[in-house]
Amino acid sequence: MVTSRWTAATARPASLRRRGPVLERAILDAALEQLSTVGWNGLTMEGVAAGAQTGKAAVYRRWPSKEDLVADALQAGLPSFEGAPDLGSVREDLVALCRRARDAMYSRPGVALRAVIHECDPTQAERFHGVIFEGVVEPLLKLLREVIARGIERGEVRSDADNRYVADVIPAMMMYRSKMHGSEWSDEEIEEMVSRLMLPLLRPGAA
Amino acid sequence: MVTSRWTAATARPASLRRRGPVLERAILDAALEQLSTVGWNGLTMEGVAAGAQTGKAAVYRRWPSKEDLVADALQAGLPSFEGAPDLGSVREDLVALCRRARDAMYSRPGVALRAVIHECDPTQAERFHGVIFEGVVEPLLKLLREVIARGIERGEVRSDADNRYVADVIPAMMMYRSKMHGSEWSDEEIEEMVSRLMLPLLRPGAA
Repeated sequence: MVTSRWTAATARPASLRRRGPVLERAILDAALEQLSTVGWNGLTMEGVAAGAQTGKAAVYRRWPSKEDLVADALQAGLPSFEGAPDLGSVREDLVALCRRARDAMYSRPGVALRAVIHECDPTQAERFHGVIFEGVVEPLLKLLREVIARGIERGEVRSDADNRYVADVIPAMMMYRSKMHGSEWSDEEIEEMVSRLMLPLLRPGAA
Repeated sequence: MVTSRWTAATARPASLRRRGPVLERAILDAALEQLSTVGWNGLTMEGVAAGAQTGKAAVYRRWPSKEDLVADALQAGLPSFEGAPDLGSVREDLVALCRRARDAMYSRPGVALRAVIHECDPTQAERFHGVIFEGVVEPLLKLLREVIARGIERGEVRSDADNRYVADVIPAMMMYRSKMHGSEWSDEEIEEMVSRLMLPLLRPGAA
């Protein structure tokens, strides 16, 4: 489907008359594509226009700056984290949640998002903080807290484990190891992290 | 000392004839300065030469590329992490160690190092992995492991806590929160992390 549209477009570029939402979607897709290949620093409005097979003016008409365009592209492309897993044990729920986070990290919008997080300086990054927090961090933390709360009800998890430091461990470890060790978070590594780190951290007992 | 040398150099730029190690040191300092202000992407050999008040040729004669120069500058500037704190309890030792890591993070070489970690793509980053691992990550992990081992001897820490997942938590949290929450790791935040995260994770008990 995508291939045939592309082929048709390449064959008759002049006839590629897309309007409104269709053209916008193509521009946002091209922005994500650029972010995940050349990164934030390499992304240009020209490159995005070329990727979307449109003119630079069509991009600037909708988004006055690279920052605005990238914020919208991330927002439109982010995966939704709806519904916490409920598999009967905190171990299984955490493994399922980490797998979901891993899949999101390595999706195209996830790669784009990480390029923005890592490459932007703090002033630029501020522009995207809302998008990242409301779109990814908060939804993930909400699911984690659900899983932990269910563990507390079942008596599997200590009652004071529902705090921000505990909730930050999984996203922190996933960011750190992918950045510093080039980890791609295999299923095995996820299971090891849950067994060796999360379960000891959450278990009830002498506090 | 630094100020007076700088002043003298500004007053008589033509007479600034430094050789060998003195000039090399000035170039490496200028590279760290550039990294911590304009970052990896902003750093140029021209900028470094200007910062060191020398010519581009003097830089290229010693370092054929930006990568080589930055690797040497990081190596020369990194703080040394010698000797684990030994204050009588795992809580105090961890707090002392985290403070030391925080101070290193916000030193000029630390800021430079983080610019490299965050901005480089994986191919470029590979060039610096040796420097970062041997210079920072491994020494810090070694101290952490010493603190944990001493806690195990004292019976404060469970015997299976000496593993890479546990050891990675502190560097992971420090990187994640400084990047995502703009945290500067106040003493209070360090103490909270140790109390709410590290002590529950390390405590002996039903595993």
